[in-house]
Amino acid sequence: MGIVVQKYGGSSVADADGIKRVAQRIVATKKSGKDVVVVVSAMGDHTDELRDLAQQVSPLPPPRELDMLLTAGERISMALVAMAIANLGQAARSFTGSQAGVITDSVHGRAKIIDITPGRIQRAIDEGHIAIVAGFQGVSQDTKDITTLGRGASDTTAVALAAALEAEVCEIYSDVDGVFTADPRIVPTARKLEQVSAEVMLEMAASGAKILHLRCVEYARRYNIPIHVRSSFSQKQGTWIVPEAKVGSMEQAIIAGVAHDRSEAKITVVAVPDKVGEAARIFETLADAQINLDMIVQNVSAAATNLTDISFTLPREDGQSAMAALARIKDGVGYDSLLYDDQIGKVSLIGAGMRSHPGITARFFAALASAGVNIEMISTSEIRISVIVDEADVDEAVAATHTAFELDSHEVEAVVYGGTGR
Amino acid sequence: MGIVVQKYGGSSVADADGIKRVAQRIVATKKSGKDVVVVVSAMGDHTDELRDLAQQVSPLPPPRELDMLLTAGERISMALVAMAIANLGQAARSFTGSQAGVITDSVHGRAKIIDITPGRIQRAIDEGHIAIVAGFQGVSQDTKDITTLGRGASDTTAVALAAALEAEVCEIYSDVDGVFTADPRIVPTARKLEQVSAEVMLEMAASGAKILHLRCVEYARRYNIPIHVRSSFSQKQGTWIVPEAKVGSMEQAIIAGVAHDRSEAKITVVAVPDKVGEAARIFETLADAQINLDMIVQNVSAAATNLTDISFTLPREDGQSAMAALARIKDGVGYDSLLYDDQIGKVSLIGAGMRSHPGITARFFAALASAGVNIEMISTSEIRISVIVDEADVDEAVAATHTAFELDSHEVEAVVYGGTGR
Repeated sequence: MGIVVQKYGGSSVADADGIKRVAQRIVATKKSGKDVVVVVSAMGDHTDELRDLAQQVSPLPPPRELDMLLTAGERISMALVAMAIANLGQAARSFTGSQAGVITDSVHGRAKIIDITPGRIQRAIDEGHIAIVAGFQGVSQDTKDITTLGRGASDTTAVALAAALEAEVCEIYSDVDGVFTADPRIVPTARKLEQVSAEVMLEMAASGAKILHLRCVEYARRYNIPIHVRSSFSQKQGTWIVPEAKVGSMEQAIIAGVAHDRSEAKITVVAVPDKVGEAARIFETLADAQINLDMIVQNVSAAATNLTDISFTLPREDGQSAMAALARIKDGVGYDSLLYDDQIGKVSLIGAGMRSHPGITARFFAALASAGVNIEMISTSEIRISVIVDEADVDEAVAATHTAFELDSHEVEAVVYGGTGR
Repeated sequence: MGIVVQKYGGSSVADADGIKRVAQRIVATKKSGKDVVVVVSAMGDHTDELRDLAQQVSPLPPPRELDMLLTAGERISMALVAMAIANLGQAARSFTGSQAGVITDSVHGRAKIIDITPGRIQRAIDEGHIAIVAGFQGVSQDTKDITTLGRGASDTTAVALAAALEAEVCEIYSDVDGVFTADPRIVPTARKLEQVSAEVMLEMAASGAKILHLRCVEYARRYNIPIHVRSSFSQKQGTWIVPEAKVGSMEQAIIAGVAHDRSEAKITVVAVPDKVGEAARIFETLADAQINLDMIVQNVSAAATNLTDISFTLPREDGQSAMAALARIKDGVGYDSLLYDDQIGKVSLIGAGMRSHPGITARFFAALASAGVNIEMISTSEIRISVIVDEADVDEAVAATHTAFELDSHEVEAVVYGGTGR
């Protein structure tokens, strides 16, 4: 009997009615003949409410204690989901991250999953129970302390469990219908993708598409777990994220979609002496401060020819600590000054078909130029082109790009997604 | 260095301000040179709110899941207390019941502590940390499931931990100043006891004094742990509960106080055939239904001479299941009918001095008679006399008894509590 892992986000379990609705869907899946493992987030905005409570008590809460606090949210939602399922006549048992065997490192607030030892979950399934697992949390291998995996990481819990249990599919439920060619709030003509490769989805997630957590997609790709992203508010099919090998080349879209991201800031280190090792020193300093950089550009400085300017983007929330870390090495590196800009946005064009289609970049830039959008930085991969623009230009850039690549026309849909059985 | 265990109830940690106030008291104790272990309840009425949430989802939630849900409350409060302490510059670590080594049986909702294995707590103390422990919860020895110890059982967690850690004292903080000779809301002239023996306190708790959980006092008596009951809202000394051997006989009050209880109901099994084994059958049935009886009275029935009426009191919340259990054995036992009365109250006079003072009972009943209070049932122990009266008469019965035994006069206080150093 196959195992289905279902993950329900906070909006799906926001109140008692939502929990009962979710329970019905879970029970229906069980009755269809599947073993079901459910991963839940905290109810609605409960995690943020707990975070606020922590702020009222302490401006800088100890990370271990913050994790202890925040994990209470899933404990509540999972117990309630298990109760609602029991009400429908099915046996359900809830498990904390620790009980479910989600073993992590000890980095509180953004712990990484090291291993999953799902013995108790497997036993619950074998006994005919539905297992309900707290998302977002685990237990550290070294200290046995409770850890959290970072914002949005319940998706990762779900896929990691699906991999450990060798599940058929990991269904990710939220309040949206699937993955779209662009954010429908910006591009009303954006369409739902029926199928997308894990590789492309990975670039979309990394480029700001919030539908799935980045690490979740990485996990799915590594362990070949198909993900079905769908809404808990309807019975509609959502978007399937499948290993690339299963997406036929005829069905592979040239362009899968346009993603955008307003969560980054840009730092420029001005007039760095152009000597071997100076850039390395800057990036080592940032790495020591646990800061993940995104795009990096180095240019000859306007100040003098033997100097260079180094610009990079990073999460805005890390802006302050990055600036502080760089300020400390100013004399050692001998740069002139630091610039900080958090009024930027990133617009990315993504598609596995790009590889074999020259001219995509030119068409992208032409679309932005026509829309009067100025490009500040550029970064490319095999299947993605990203540009940094003024934050105020993001909507227009996304819409213009979406139109330029004919993502909103019906014909393109037929070509791109024609292979999914219609 | 001595260990102090402090327990803070929900009213003491009801909001961020309360948590900060409690943190200051904890840090002050630590700075006075003690090792400190803190047991916390959930914030304010949070446990009841979680219970309500469960009711919205399920009329009869599975006990395992209800325990999982309810234990979220202490997880939140303990993490916040640890944060507030860290803010004051002291290291604190919070521990769930399971992490603290509170091992219980598997009776969800009212699990009993089997053992305490406080290795992690001891290590935290040894490293100079303040340990914050979730009250009310443990982990079952057999199933490794999360359990709760029943309403008000955080007191028990605190005393059990104090015993396991061989603490000097267990301080129980709430919003009242200590143990009084009667409920001050009923008897405004009631006075705070400075010292009371564990034996007497046990009878007071069993008789409805809500200041301390019954099992907590049992634990303290068994393991000789002194308890100091006091308010977290003032610096005043509260009431010390000490082993009887430490209360000098000169200081032992004849009467410690008057307790009352409105939480019971009375069931009468009418016209039971007066044969060997019939009563046993009734009480076996109730025991099988996990119902704790309090007072039991057997009388000749008014119906016929070879029949008896059996009356007993029990917690009101168990009334329905007790009636149902008894109804099932009606034909087997051959009784006539069942009567149920939940409009009763129990008034108890308690004091170790009673043993050697004849006439206490007569004085008690005379006081009730003068106040026009009718006695429905009577039960006595070496150090307690309890009567069941009409619930509407409880206040008057308590006040009349309190006055009859001169508990509100200053002279009595001097005699009774003269030995505590004043």
